[in-house]
Amino acid sequence: MSLKIKLSQQEYDRRLQRMRQHMMDQGLDGLCIFGAGRIFYLSGFHHLATERPVVLVVPLQGELALLVPHLEEENIPIRNPNIKEVKVYGEYPGLKHPMRYLAELLFEKGLSDKALGVDSTGWGGGWGYRGPSLIDIAPQAKLTDIRDFIDDRRMIKSEEEIALIRLSVQFGNVAHALLQEYAQVGLSELEIAGRAAQAATTYMVKAMPHDWEPVSGAAGPFVTFTSGPKTAFNHRQTGARTIQVGDVILTDVGSNVGGYVSELERMMIVGTPTDQHKRYFDLTLRAQNVALAAIRPGARCSDVERAVNAFWEEHDVYNLTRTHIGHGIGIEPHEAPFLDVGDDTLLQPGMVLTVEPCLFVPNFAGFRHSDTILVTKDGVEMLTYYPRDLDNLVILA
Amino acid sequence: MSLKIKLSQQEYDRRLQRMRQHMMDQGLDGLCIFGAGRIFYLSGFHHLATERPVVLVVPLQGELALLVPHLEEENIPIRNPNIKEVKVYGEYPGLKHPMRYLAELLFEKGLSDKALGVDSTGWGGGWGYRGPSLIDIAPQAKLTDIRDFIDDRRMIKSEEEIALIRLSVQFGNVAHALLQEYAQVGLSELEIAGRAAQAATTYMVKAMPHDWEPVSGAAGPFVTFTSGPKTAFNHRQTGARTIQVGDVILTDVGSNVGGYVSELERMMIVGTPTDQHKRYFDLTLRAQNVALAAIRPGARCSDVERAVNAFWEEHDVYNLTRTHIGHGIGIEPHEAPFLDVGDDTLLQPGMVLTVEPCLFVPNFAGFRHSDTILVTKDGVEMLTYYPRDLDNLVILA
Repeated sequence: MSLKIKLSQQEYDRRLQRMRQHMMDQGLDGLCIFGAGRIFYLSGFHHLATERPVVLVVPLQGELALLVPHLEEENIPIRNPNIKEVKVYGEYPGLKHPMRYLAELLFEKGLSDKALGVDSTGWGGGWGYRGPSLIDIAPQAKLTDIRDFIDDRRMIKSEEEIALIRLSVQFGNVAHALLQEYAQVGLSELEIAGRAAQAATTYMVKAMPHDWEPVSGAAGPFVTFTSGPKTAFNHRQTGARTIQVGDVILTDVGSNVGGYVSELERMMIVGTPTDQHKRYFDLTLRAQNVALAAIRPGARCSDVERAVNAFWEEHDVYNLTRTHIGHGIGIEPHEAPFLDVGDDTLLQPGMVLTVEPCLFVPNFAGFRHSDTILVTKDGVEMLTYYPRDLDNLVILA
Repeated sequence: MSLKIKLSQQEYDRRLQRMRQHMMDQGLDGLCIFGAGRIFYLSGFHHLATERPVVLVVPLQGELALLVPHLEEENIPIRNPNIKEVKVYGEYPGLKHPMRYLAELLFEKGLSDKALGVDSTGWGGGWGYRGPSLIDIAPQAKLTDIRDFIDDRRMIKSEEEIALIRLSVQFGNVAHALLQEYAQVGLSELEIAGRAAQAATTYMVKAMPHDWEPVSGAAGPFVTFTSGPKTAFNHRQTGARTIQVGDVILTDVGSNVGGYVSELERMMIVGTPTDQHKRYFDLTLRAQNVALAAIRPGARCSDVERAVNAFWEEHDVYNLTRTHIGHGIGIEPHEAPFLDVGDDTLLQPGMVLTVEPCLFVPNFAGFRHSDTILVTKDGVEMLTYYPRDLDNLVILA
C-alpha cells in the first residue's frame, strides 16, 4: 500500500483513445499541442513553459512524439515513461530555430501536409520568445482548432483525478489551520502567510514519499492572505500590512498533488465581529449555500449564478459583487466550465468546481468563502471541509 | 528620502513617446496589446493573467485605454494613475464575451478599421479561456505584429530599471545567505528552501515601506534548492529529498521589486569536496569568467556562447553542457536577448543579462553559477555579489 500521487497508465490510455476517436470523427491525421496543461493531460509530461518550445505530436496511430530542448530530454523517462519518441533541439533560439525541428518532426511522422488538430498556431511567447508560426513552418498542413475539445474532456474528472484533488484538499486544510493559528495582530500578512506555507510544506514533506518531487512550477502548499480595507478590492496581493483588530481577512490556500490543485478560501474576522461584519459574512455564507443548492446534474452553470443573483437582489446587494460564482479546477487553478450567466454548460457528475460568491463593500472589506466541490449524481459533495461558520473563523485579539 | 520601488511617470512617458514614434514610422493608428509583461512595460499596470482578458489599447494620440474585468477596475488607480480610460466588462465569459467589449473599445477609439500593431491576435488561453480572435471581432482592422519591437526596447534597461534590479539583487543575496545557513544534512530540500524563503520574506517586509504590496503574482523572495544526483538533470524541482554528505547543491534565488527580478544561482558542495567536485566546479567557474570577459558593447550575444564553447571543447566537456550561456532579465525571468550561438544581437550598455554556463555530469551532478550582470560601456558590472569561490560555498557536515 502506497500513497497514490500519480495517475495510472490506464488513465492516459483512456484519454488518448478518446482523443483518437475524435480525430477519426473529424478526419484529423494528427495533433500538434502547445499548451503545457494539455500536454500534461494527454501524456503526463509536465514542464515549466518558458521561451523553449515543448510540443506534443499525436499521430492517429503509433507513438506520441515530444519536441523538447536538450535540457528536458533526460527528464522524460523520469516524468513519464509513456513518451517513447523524442525530437530534441539544442537550445532556443539556436542556430536552427526549434520550430524548424518541429517542421522536421511533422515531416518524419508523415504529417507535414495532413489535417492537424491544434490548440494554437505557435508557441505562446513571453520569456523573450520569438519565432515563426505553425502556418509558416508547415504551410501544407490543414489546421483545425481542437483546443476546446480537449478542454471539454478535462471538465469531467475521473476517480483517479478526484483522489489526487482530495489529497490536495487535505494539505490545503493543514495550511489553512496553520494560517489561522499564526494570524495575530501586529504581524504582517507576508510573515503570517510565509510562516504557514513553510510549516505546511514541512508537514507535506513528511506525509509524502521520501523522494517526492512536486510537478514543475509547484512546491509545497501556497498561501495568500490579505487584510483590512484592501480586501474590498479583488486580486490584491499579500503584502507588508500588519493585521489589526476589526480587520476582515481573506485567505486563499491550496496545494498541488500529482499535477492537480484545489482551492480553499475563507473570510475571517480579527477580534469581536461587529454587526456590519456579521451582516456581510452571513449574506455571503447564505449565498454560498444558495449556490450549492443549485448545483446538480442537469442544471446549467448559468442557473447557479442566476440563483445567487436573485438572492443578492432580494437583499439589495447585487451592486457589491464583482465576479461570477465559481470555476472548474484541476490541472490549472481555473478551468472550464464557469458558474457564470454566460456559460450554459450542463453540470455533470465528476465536475470539480469552486463555489465562491463574494461581496466587496467599498471602504470596508471583502467577503468570500471558496470551497472546492464535486458534482455527484445527487447534487454536491464538499471536497474542502474547513469550517465555514463565523464562530470558527474569529481571530482572537 | 524614501526607498524607490516604483518607476517614475517620466519613465512611462519616454516609453510611450518611443512607441508612438515607431507607430508613426510604421503608419500604425493604434496598438492592441495582450501580453501582461508588455502591458506592464507600457502602462505600469500589473495583473495576474487568468481567463479574464486584460488588453491595452494605445491610440496614436490621446489617452491609453485598458479593457478590464469589473474586479480589476478599482485596482487601476492603485496600481497606476497613468491610465485614465477604462472599458469594463462584468466577467468572463459573461452574457457578452470580453472580446466583444474590446471590439466596442476599438470602435469608440476610432480604430476598428485602422492599422493596428498587435503582440498577439487574441487572448492567450489557458485557465479555461475560450473565445474569438481579434481577426473575428475587428475584421476591418489591418494587423501588424509589433511584439518584437516592444521586446527589443525592453532589452536596454534605464537607470531607474537598473536601480530596481539592484534592490532585487540585495534581497536575493539575503535569501541565499539564509539558504546556505539553513542547509544541513538530514533536512529536506523543501524544508530548507521554505525556511530560507520565509526568513528572507520577513527581512524584506522589514526593509520595505510599511504598506508595501508586491506586484501581482510575486510575494517575498523565491528560493529553489535541488541536491544530489538529481542536479545532473536540468529543471528539476525542489523536493522531499534530504541532503547528504557528498551532495552537490544547485540553488536559484531572486526577488521582485517593483515588477523587476534578478537571478542568483550557486553550486555548493556538502562536506569536503572531492577531486571530482573540484574539477567540475573549477571548469564551470572558469567558463563563467570566459563568458564575462567576452561580454562588452559591440560584441554579439553569439560571440559569448562561442567563446565558452571553445573553452568547453578545449577541456573536452562540451558534451556535458545542455543550455546556452544566459539570457536577458527584467520584467520577466527570461527576456531577449539570449547568449546563444543563434542570437546575433549586439551587446549594448544597459542590457541586464544572466551569465550561467553549466555542466551536467551523468550519474554525478550538475554544476552552475548564475549571476545577473549589467553591460557597461567598458564591459561588465556584476550586479549579484554572492561569493563564487569554492571555499565560500562548502556546507560543513
